[in-house]
Amino acid sequence: MASASTARAALLRGVGLKFATRPSEVDEDQPKAAMRAAGAEAVARALAELKARHIAAQMPGKLVIGADQLLDCNGDWFDKARDREEASEQLRLLRGKEHRLATAVCVFEGETCLWSYTCSPRLRMRDFSDAYIESYLQATGDAALGCVGAYRLEGLGAHLFDEIEGDYFSILGLPLLPLLGFLRARGIVTP
Amino acid sequence: MASASTARAALLRGVGLKFATRPSEVDEDQPKAAMRAAGAEAVARALAELKARHIAAQMPGKLVIGADQLLDCNGDWFDKARDREEASEQLRLLRGKEHRLATAVCVFEGETCLWSYTCSPRLRMRDFSDAYIESYLQATGDAALGCVGAYRLEGLGAHLFDEIEGDYFSILGLPLLPLLGFLRARGIVTP
Repeated sequence: MASASTARAALLRGVGLKFATRPSEVDEDQPKAAMRAAGAEAVARALAELKARHIAAQMPGKLVIGADQLLDCNGDWFDKARDREEASEQLRLLRGKEHRLATAVCVFEGETCLWSYTCSPRLRMRDFSDAYIESYLQATGDAALGCVGAYRLEGLGAHLFDEIEGDYFSILGLPLLPLLGFLRARGIVTP
Repeated sequence: MASASTARAALLRGVGLKFATRPSEVDEDQPKAAMRAAGAEAVARALAELKARHIAAQMPGKLVIGADQLLDCNGDWFDKARDREEASEQLRLLRGKEHRLATAVCVFEGETCLWSYTCSPRLRMRDFSDAYIESYLQATGDAALGCVGAYRLEGLGAHLFDEIEGDYFSILGLPLLPLLGFLRARGIVTP
């Protein structure tokens, strides 16, 4: 898998898949800026493919999973927060609003994209106070920093939301059911 | 919490709630049979309230959470499988079909139901073979037995499904976001 995400790795391990992790170090900022007008879904898909293609080129004959997720809130895009200050800023911007997580997964073999899938779960944050944000970030510690939007739904992050629409696997960054469907069709997972 | 479910306890712990577990040992079969015509949602709600009321009577002044979940597949109801044979039978009946998980949660204080909520996530199982069922149950071991419908979505269970519609917390048996909303409104959880 061409991703360093521990949440994605945990999902794949959870369903008993055997895989290796090879985080791709391609530049994501340039394609993100260049393709911005195409929308979050198109960019997430392009980035997932870019990462998978990069690793697949180094591993002939292996299937390589690429994945990407972009948070879009009324046209504003959010990256992983780098520090507490940035996490706090993101939560201030997201509170009281709905956002979507444009989530893409693909599978490459060599230079060929064998399969790809994109979906967009929607989540609505409560309109909490500045003081709440600070106590939330205090409670989560650095766990909030590695995540787009500064939340992890698996733990305390649930406190931030009013409503969630979309499947859990996709929200965590990997549309697992369609991916398993593809792997089954290829005979990689027992049908 | 008037429930012995480890999945429910894990969800509450995940959001940092402090609580004790007091499984209620009320007879569930009789009300289930008596109320059957009212539908799965009404029965899940009645059972959640029955269990919470029973424990709340023993703990004056404490808030007691009750929860229940019933699997309804085209009018057939499924209980937790008691052994491998029953788990296998359930999966044979559920494959290739959609079912719903009527899921209820309530909060009691003494004899008063302060709040209750019911929802029904829908899941569609793939049309897998008998051989697949046996290898699945072999791989999951006894983990499949404690669960309604003989699957745990948190692990290998994901292999069984084509499509899932509904939030993850509710599928695991506890509609966490509405419950947190109630606890927030009561000032039990920081707003």
